[in-house]
This record gives sequence, structure tokens and C-alpha cells, in this order.
Amino acid sequence: MGQRDPGRLVGCELCMQDGGLLVHRGVKLRVIRATEPEHPAFYRVVWNDHVAEWTDLPPADRSHLMQAVAKVETVLREHLQPTKVNLASLGNVVPHLHWHVIARFDWDGRWPAPVWAPLRESVPDAEARLAVPLSALDRLVAEAVRELDLATSL
Amino acid sequence: MGQRDPGRLVGCELCMQDGGLLVHRGVKLRVIRATEPEHPAFYRVVWNDHVAEWTDLPPADRSHLMQAVAKVETVLREHLQPTKVNLASLGNVVPHLHWHVIARFDWDGRWPAPVWAPLRESVPDAEARLAVPLSALDRLVAEAVRELDLATSL
Repeated sequence: MGQRDPGRLVGCELCMQDGGLLVHRGVKLRVIRATEPEHPAFYRVVWNDHVAEWTDLPPADRSHLMQAVAKVETVLREHLQPTKVNLASLGNVVPHLHWHVIARFDWDGRWPAPVWAPLRESVPDAEARLAVPLSALDRLVAEAVRELDLATSL
Repeated sequence: MGQRDPGRLVGCELCMQDGGLLVHRGVKLRVIRATEPEHPAFYRVVWNDHVAEWTDLPPADRSHLMQAVAKVETVLREHLQPTKVNLASLGNVVPHLHWHVIARFDWDGRWPAPVWAPLRESVPDAEARLAVPLSALDRLVAEAVRELDLATSL
């Protein structure tokens, strides 16, 4: 984001920083991977401009954002076969529009509770249990979302 | 749902029951209100047929579902002015596609944590603090989603 980007709010964590490991940056949105050892396949689709609520976006942008979320979900499903995918847009602490896309497994340390619940038990080898290394998964996620950007001329 | 509905899975809670107070029933989806005293303005948009993941739906149905979610979010924002809206599709416990649409307030008993976090403090008059009675809110939500159904000829 340029320093004079009018969509940037000084003091907002997701305006000032990527918000995790940057996987893909497009014109309108970016994808980062959260580095949560207990939930290694945990991505966030972040709207670049500062808006708080999903319905702050015009319908076409809402749809574009959700198509990116669907791309990430599809990659996680195809390559990890998770027990369930969890999607959420909360933003109570950082009210800058972002969608969590999380592959959940029946062996993970909070299953079946949401990832925001207290840890039930630590699973130290969570990352190693994934069917695909995280670096490869990041590339697959990036390719899928980049294709969407190209298809929508962004 | 008819008893011979092929989209119904015996034993699934959201196939066998509405899943809360029924606010609107359409051909493809319904809206229910969860009865959570600490989070009174807590709706769920439930896909009628049994599918587990959002991306199990074809893109047109995904979009229709998200438009219904947007309608509910818009009603909550316009009539309650919540501090934040929380959206989520988890389904770890009941893997039948449903979206939570929750008006959150900085005075609610779990703020700023997600509603799945432990209760910080009970707010016994949470419902009375809403700017609109729940019965009126239910009608507004139902009208908004019904309009969408009519617009999409469902």
C-alpha cells in the first residue's frame, strides 16, 4: 500500500501491516497466512482498503471478496481434505474487513470448538500432519486467487 | 421440508428441525433466530438442503446465500447500529451449511471476544438494550430476505 493510499487508516493494524505471512497481494485484496501453530492451515483474505463491515462494500466488491474466499476454501479442501472448513469475518478487535479461512481437523487442539475457544490440548506436530507442506499450500492458494484477479481484470 | 425431501439427512439436527425460532422460510434457505440471551440479535441463515461446506454449492447458490446474509447484516446495522457484525460459517458440530449473523455490542457479555469464547460477564438486560424489539427485528429480517427471494424468483 502506498503511503498516500487514501484507503489507509493510520493506527489500524491491517492498514499498517500485512497482518501475517503475505501469500498474495492483489489490487483490491490480499491473502495472508496466520502463523498459528495449532491451526497451521489458517489463511486470511484481507480487503486492502480500510472498511469495517462486509456490507460497507458495494455488491460487486462483496462478491469479488467472497469469490476469493471460495478459492482459498477450494484449495484447502482439495489438498488437505480437512474435516471442516471454518469461515468467519469478525473484526471486533481489528475492525478492518478480513475473512478467516481455516482448515479444521478432528485431531486439532480445539476440535470441534471454534479456533477462538480455549485450547483443549496442544498438538505439537500439527503442521507435519498436513498432506501438503505449507510452502506448497501457500503457492496453490496464491495461484488460485491470482487467477481470480486476472479473470476479473484486477 | 417435505418428508420425502431428497436433500434431508436423517439424524442431522438442521435437516430435522428449524434450528431456532423460524423467521423466514424460502425455497432454498431459511432464517432462524438463535435464542441466546447474551446475544439477542443472533440470526442464522440455513441452507435447506443438506450440504456441509459453502463451496459444495454451485456458485449461483453460494452467491444467493451470501446475498441473504448481506440482507440480514444490513437490517441489523440499520436498526441496531451494532458495534460490529460477526459473520461465520463453522459447522464443526452440526456440519449442515449455515451462516451466523450476529450483532455485537461493546456492552455485550463476551465483547470483544467471539460469541464462542467463555462469557466474561452476564448482561441480564441485553435484549432490552436493543434499539428495536426482537419481534419487530424478526419482521424486518423476514421482509428483507423475502424481497431477495422474490427478486431471484425463488
